[in-house]
Amino acid sequence: MSSQSGVLFRITTFGESHGPGVGVVIDGCPAGMRIDWEAVQAQLARRRPGQSHLTTQRKEPDLLEVLSGVYEERSLGTPIAVLVRNTDSRSKDYDGFSQVYRPSHADYTYHIKYGHRTPHGGGRASVRETIGRVIAGSVAEQILKNELGMETVGWVDSIGEIEASVFENPPIDRSVVDQSLVRCPDPQKSDRMIALVEQVKKAGDSVGGTVGLIVRNVPPGLGEPVFDKLEAELAKACLSIPACKGFESGSGFQGTRGRGSEHNDLFYNEGQPSASREPPPVPFENVPDLKTRSNRSGGIQGGITNGMPITMRVAFKPTATIFQTQTTADEYGAEVELQARGRHDPCVLPRAVPIVESVVNLVLVDAYLQQRARNPVWWERYALDRKKSAAVETP
Amino acid sequence: MSSQSGVLFRITTFGESHGPGVGVVIDGCPAGMRIDWEAVQAQLARRRPGQSHLTTQRKEPDLLEVLSGVYEERSLGTPIAVLVRNTDSRSKDYDGFSQVYRPSHADYTYHIKYGHRTPHGGGRASVRETIGRVIAGSVAEQILKNELGMETVGWVDSIGEIEASVFENPPIDRSVVDQSLVRCPDPQKSDRMIALVEQVKKAGDSVGGTVGLIVRNVPPGLGEPVFDKLEAELAKACLSIPACKGFESGSGFQGTRGRGSEHNDLFYNEGQPSASREPPPVPFENVPDLKTRSNRSGGIQGGITNGMPITMRVAFKPTATIFQTQTTADEYGAEVELQARGRHDPCVLPRAVPIVESVVNLVLVDAYLQQRARNPVWWERYALDRKKSAAVETP
Amino acid sequence: MSSQSGVLFRITTFGESHGPGVGVVIDGCPAGMRIDWEAVQAQLARRRPGQSHLTTQRKEPDLLEVLSGVYEERSLGTPIAVLVRNTDSRSKDYDGFSQVYRPSHADYTYHIKYGHRTPHGGGRASVRETIGRVIAGSVAEQILKNELGMETVGWVDSIGEIEASVFENPPIDRSVVDQSLVRCPDPQKSDRMIALVEQVKKAGDSVGGTVGLIVRNVPPGLGEPVFDKLEAELAKACLSIPACKGFESGSGFQGTRGRGSEHNDLFYNEGQPSASREPPPVPFENVPDLKTRSNRSGGIQGGITNGMPITMRVAFKPTATIFQTQTTADEYGAEVELQARGRHDPCVLPRAVPIVESVVNLVLVDAYLQQRARNPVWWERYALDRKKSAAVETP
Amino acid sequence: MSSQSGVLFRITTFGESHGPGVGVVIDGCPAGMRIDWEAVQAQLARRRPGQSHLTTQRKEPDLLEVLSGVYEERSLGTPIAVLVRNTDSRSKDYDGFSQVYRPSHADYTYHIKYGHRTPHGGGRASVRETIGRVIAGSVAEQILKNELGMETVGWVDSIGEIEASVFENPPIDRSVVDQSLVRCPDPQKSDRMIALVEQVKKAGDSVGGTVGLIVRNVPPGLGEPVFDKLEAELAKACLSIPACKGFESGSGFQGTRGRGSEHNDLFYNEGQPSASREPPPVPFENVPDLKTRSNRSGGIQGGITNGMPITMRVAFKPTATIFQTQTTADEYGAEVELQARGRHDPCVLPRAVPIVESVVNLVLVDAYLQQRARNPVWWERYALDRKKSAAVETP
Repeated sequence: MSSQSGVLFRITTFGESHGPGVGVVIDGCPAGMRIDWEAVQAQLARRRPGQSHLTTQRKEPDLLEVLSGVYEERSLGTPIAVLVRNTDSRSKDYDGFSQVYRPSHADYTYHIKYGHRTPHGGGRASVRETIGRVIAGSVAEQILKNELGMETVGWVDSIGEIEASVFENPPIDRSVVDQSLVRCPDPQKSDRMIALVEQVKKAGDSVGGTVGLIVRNVPPGLGEPVFDKLEAELAKACLSIPACKGFESGSGFQGTRGRGSEHNDLFYNEGQPSASREPPPVPFENVPDLKTRSNRSGGIQGGITNGMPITMRVAFKPTATIFQTQTTADEYGAEVELQARGRHDPCVLPRAVPIVESVVNLVLVDAYLQQRARNPVWWERYALDRKKSAAVETP
Repeated sequence: MSSQSGVLFRITTFGESHGPGVGVVIDGCPAGMRIDWEAVQAQLARRRPGQSHLTTQRKEPDLLEVLSGVYEERSLGTPIAVLVRNTDSRSKDYDGFSQVYRPSHADYTYHIKYGHRTPHGGGRASVRETIGRVIAGSVAEQILKNELGMETVGWVDSIGEIEASVFENPPIDRSVVDQSLVRCPDPQKSDRMIALVEQVKKAGDSVGGTVGLIVRNVPPGLGEPVFDKLEAELAKACLSIPACKGFESGSGFQGTRGRGSEHNDLFYNEGQPSASREPPPVPFENVPDLKTRSNRSGGIQGGITNGMPITMRVAFKPTATIFQTQTTADEYGAEVELQARGRHDPCVLPRAVPIVESVVNLVLVDAYLQQRARNPVWWERYALDRKKSAAVETP
Repeated sequence: MSSQSGVLFRITTFGESHGPGVGVVIDGCPAGMRIDWEAVQAQLARRRPGQSHLTTQRKEPDLLEVLSGVYEERSLGTPIAVLVRNTDSRSKDYDGFSQVYRPSHADYTYHIKYGHRTPHGGGRASVRETIGRVIAGSVAEQILKNELGMETVGWVDSIGEIEASVFENPPIDRSVVDQSLVRCPDPQKSDRMIALVEQVKKAGDSVGGTVGLIVRNVPPGLGEPVFDKLEAELAKACLSIPACKGFESGSGFQGTRGRGSEHNDLFYNEGQPSASREPPPVPFENVPDLKTRSNRSGGIQGGITNGMPITMRVAFKPTATIFQTQTTADEYGAEVELQARGRHDPCVLPRAVPIVESVVNLVLVDAYLQQRARNPVWWERYALDRKKSAAVETP
Repeated sequence: MSSQSGVLFRITTFGESHGPGVGVVIDGCPAGMRIDWEAVQAQLARRRPGQSHLTTQRKEPDLLEVLSGVYEERSLGTPIAVLVRNTDSRSKDYDGFSQVYRPSHADYTYHIKYGHRTPHGGGRASVRETIGRVIAGSVAEQILKNELGMETVGWVDSIGEIEASVFENPPIDRSVVDQSLVRCPDPQKSDRMIALVEQVKKAGDSVGGTVGLIVRNVPPGLGEPVFDKLEAELAKACLSIPACKGFESGSGFQGTRGRGSEHNDLFYNEGQPSASREPPPVPFENVPDLKTRSNRSGGIQGGITNGMPITMRVAFKPTATIFQTQTTADEYGAEVELQARGRHDPCVLPRAVPIVESVVNLVLVDAYLQQRARNPVWWERYALDRKKSAAVETP
């Protein structure tokens, strides 16, 4: 199951970075949806290498070809297969390394797990694998936006030791984020981050950082309790991105330092309380629309959304490929010196933003489809109304 | 699927904290294994409330009854069902709250998701649900220990602002950990943590913290790349524990601050390199047994174990139930003052340790079973030898 | 996964016929449903041994105990665990056989698969395992009946060479079926079947037969195409019942003998055609409610229900345990003579009827939940209306 | 999940018969396997339309393109994606029908399920979807053959009322089967079948039939008991093939007519019984290699293989498309006359043979991978020895 994810909106990615191409099959996309492929292609472009002088100069247009599941721009309900051909896979850049285990790469672990090595540049461990996730995540996002009005925006929250305080005033949409070369919406911190990446690149080194993310207009009730809590699914989705080493939801690690009396999110009602005190005939009718005065829960309580924005932060280690000489071992167990060539990002963070957005949307669309299966009364109250007010024309 | 987890070693938990009982069904436990039920019961005792004056005084003996899957102490290969009866479920403690949404609890989200509320004390959101996971995790641990020699040890790494530096010298086994009332193996920090919990308890408040964990003797090659990376599965497992808000693997969030040149784990060979330079006939035979000079990867590279110890840290928020007055809203949307009663932990951290150990072992045993399915040559090289050297008598 | 089944309405059964008990955990039952446990117990009674002089005389009251998931008769949305204790497990009846492989039983295959044998009377291969399925299937049936008005009725269609022609005039409900000791609604054939079973029992022999089944009031649109076609799921569910060796849907094997011109089911409209020829704005609104003049498709076309009744026939081999002397081999590979003792059915067919009904309802409820996830417009048109007209009070 | 199947060897098919192409992604193929793509292409050719004057004249070369998962003919352990472009999709043949529901086709059920119709010729209900299954099934077959020596051979067992008695003397390999235009290895019956298909074709009609299949050299111990019995999985796999309406294993429906004393398969030992009567130290060592004197079980007992050949029979209804005029209804609910055009098989049976072989091999390879995960001692005894004796070079 290693290349599959999801329960009802289920995706399978395929492809190596140095083979013919990469892609995705989406099984379970509802039928009749109008898919905006330009929006998908635009999100792919945000993930693409070579966007600025700060990222790897590998040039891939990453043009998608839809192989199935769509007719006249509408989803058929059948599997949507999308292929992106590899066009710039210079595997000769990797030739010299085929017998060396690069430090903090997956070369050694893949060799042991599968019993062989190929010059395919890391194979499935390459960040190029995420193309399929960005395609599927962008389709997922369109469902969430069209049917529920949900909006997902990620940004670079820190690079190295430079931390922005973006959660105090998170960006409204991606256009704000994309004004910064490093996708940090705090202009001053952005400038400092750019300078840091340039300096690190010059030194042949690399640097890590964190991505912050907020989802707005989330209906309450999404997420399955116990094993598949929404935070658990989000954590898994994020940790499955190459180079990710940490995840926190809401107050996260920082929240562990305070007291319950400071940390609890108090409920309040912006509207009027119900006049009646009678137990209502239909259970759902008496659930008031509440808010919380703070949001240290990050919009999730007991693994289920409470209607407040979902917030999270995701840690990415410094890129493993650096252009300084390192000692390591080869396949014969001999010590060797490694001097990297090829094209690599000194800092993956700006390109990680659309990837994190995509995996988050994949988790959310699956939670949404599951919830409408399990509780159609919920569907009527929380989704059908939103959809009608949006006058969406999907079937 | 909310109450099921795992691919080949698959568990289903059931039961509410105020119903007849809680339990677990393990589907996929290999046959012929001798299960040490006393060890399972002992691990359950470490999770149990009322272990010290620091934790909730709810008294539950938590005695397990094995309903199926075992004959004369041996696993049959059939589902192992285990039941723990509830004996001390004073639901009257919760009576007054049945129409109030407690802050930062799952009351409100469960009401919206399921359309009803019960006086069952939070139902499946209760930490009592984890009993089934501890039982299954303890069985999983016995497989990993007997067949591979793996050892999992968790501890309390911080409480509130008091942080121990345990990762510099992690405890060898649980007996060291259990010498501390708060399960922190650093005696001085342990004393300060105990004082903090006592003070917080006295104030009717609560406090959070982190659990650290190490797994030793891990064979390389465990974990599926892409979506089911080992770190991703571990993150999901941890974030599915009640009150967990964060997860980090290896260097985690701290590691994002440094440079690649500082962060990379360099490979080296403690033994001799191979004399031959011939490409070997059987691919696996030429994979050398390497180590890394540092372990910022936390034993996992590309989602696959590299043979170094697995390390992680898990964040738990302060307990939501406090004994100070809080304002919140009730089912009618009216503002109310809430004064908690009942029995609750001012700090869940000490009891979280065996829970984290359990969910980690559940992830690892599933990765192990999957890997031996996918690659029997791996099995011959990395598992069969260990097993033989351990002279284990399982079939 | 061997003891788990279903995607959204997911069940896990556990228990051996000679251990403490058997049971089931239902994960994914929608919340707020009023469960009629007497109806569940009644269906269990139809499955129970010892119902007449024709079946095994093992006496088990099969009283169910609900361990979780229900409060004041309503489903909580959490896992519903149900336990049935074993009370009459005379494993001594099996003692002599512990080293003999009984012909056409699972003794030999279990021994090879799991590497051990127990005196547990066949373990999970026992028909006693189906208790969990009947419990869960009866809960599933209540959902289908309350929300959609669906009705499932099975019967004995043949025993040995005596075939009834029940499909020409299928029984309206189970009370008709239960008037016959062998559950064949054709009174004359029923008498002949009873005589045959008595004769076979007297001879220490056994006999097989077939179960026929019809589901009425099926909404169109249930079932997933390609791998999970409704017929495929029904076939799997039936073939997973002990002693089942065949399944056919609609015209089945007999239908292979005719011509397409005879076999095709022609569509017609009992109502008026639409006056307008305009392409409708909302795709679903122009799907007419059609019927077919024949029903050789058995209510399923392309793996999806078409609104006509689902029909199927299921084959059960003669019971493997007979009371005549047979030669076989023991664990040492030596030839031995086997003379069976214990209590066994000379004919499982009457007891198979509620089991087949149960597994069919489990498949259908899962298809229903999946369809309402995938297409809420379908839900509005085909399910919500039925539910409203039924004035059902579930949330 | 409708387009995905399998637990460890997991496939996803995609593509409509009138879109750009069809294909498959295989997730979980063990690494290092040498895949014979010519053999895959050859099996595809057996499935292809236009093989003789008896089948549809649609001309598709069905050339496969491997997009990922393979390097220098070896599997990488990563997903294997294979694409077959559509080249002869005359959707204009279907134009007139876009508003008519063809009898016994999936037009009506797809329209209701998905809320739309397309001129894509039935979409996923087309037999063209099976291309992906044949590709994956052929890869699966190579694993089973290379590692275990298993051999799967299917044939046409009946067409219309003409039944061959092939099970009395099943064909050794496919070359025998392919000597017959209708793939019936009984030459006389084959001639009669050919004449029948020609006559039916001339009449613009169609005819059904059955496929028989045998698997030889099956190791005992494959298949999971309870829900995923091997027969249950095989039944599901077969019933998921378009036009399939029935499945039987071993003695099947015919076996229900006899008595247990005639039906039971008696065990015997071709070798010597064990001299010792001591309980052996390692459980597996004392399981003798037994055979049964008859094989009415079809090689499966309790859902698990017993080492005898697996046998089954699968029913296919007459092709729904005929060239005689039929009455039906259109999207407006009006009665219309339908006169089919396009290219269709008067009898799908010859082309169904490789499809049935493929889905059977997919089930078996998954059972094999699961079993070697669950029981490595089984692996050592039943698989490793076979593999060594075959001197197979896979890792």
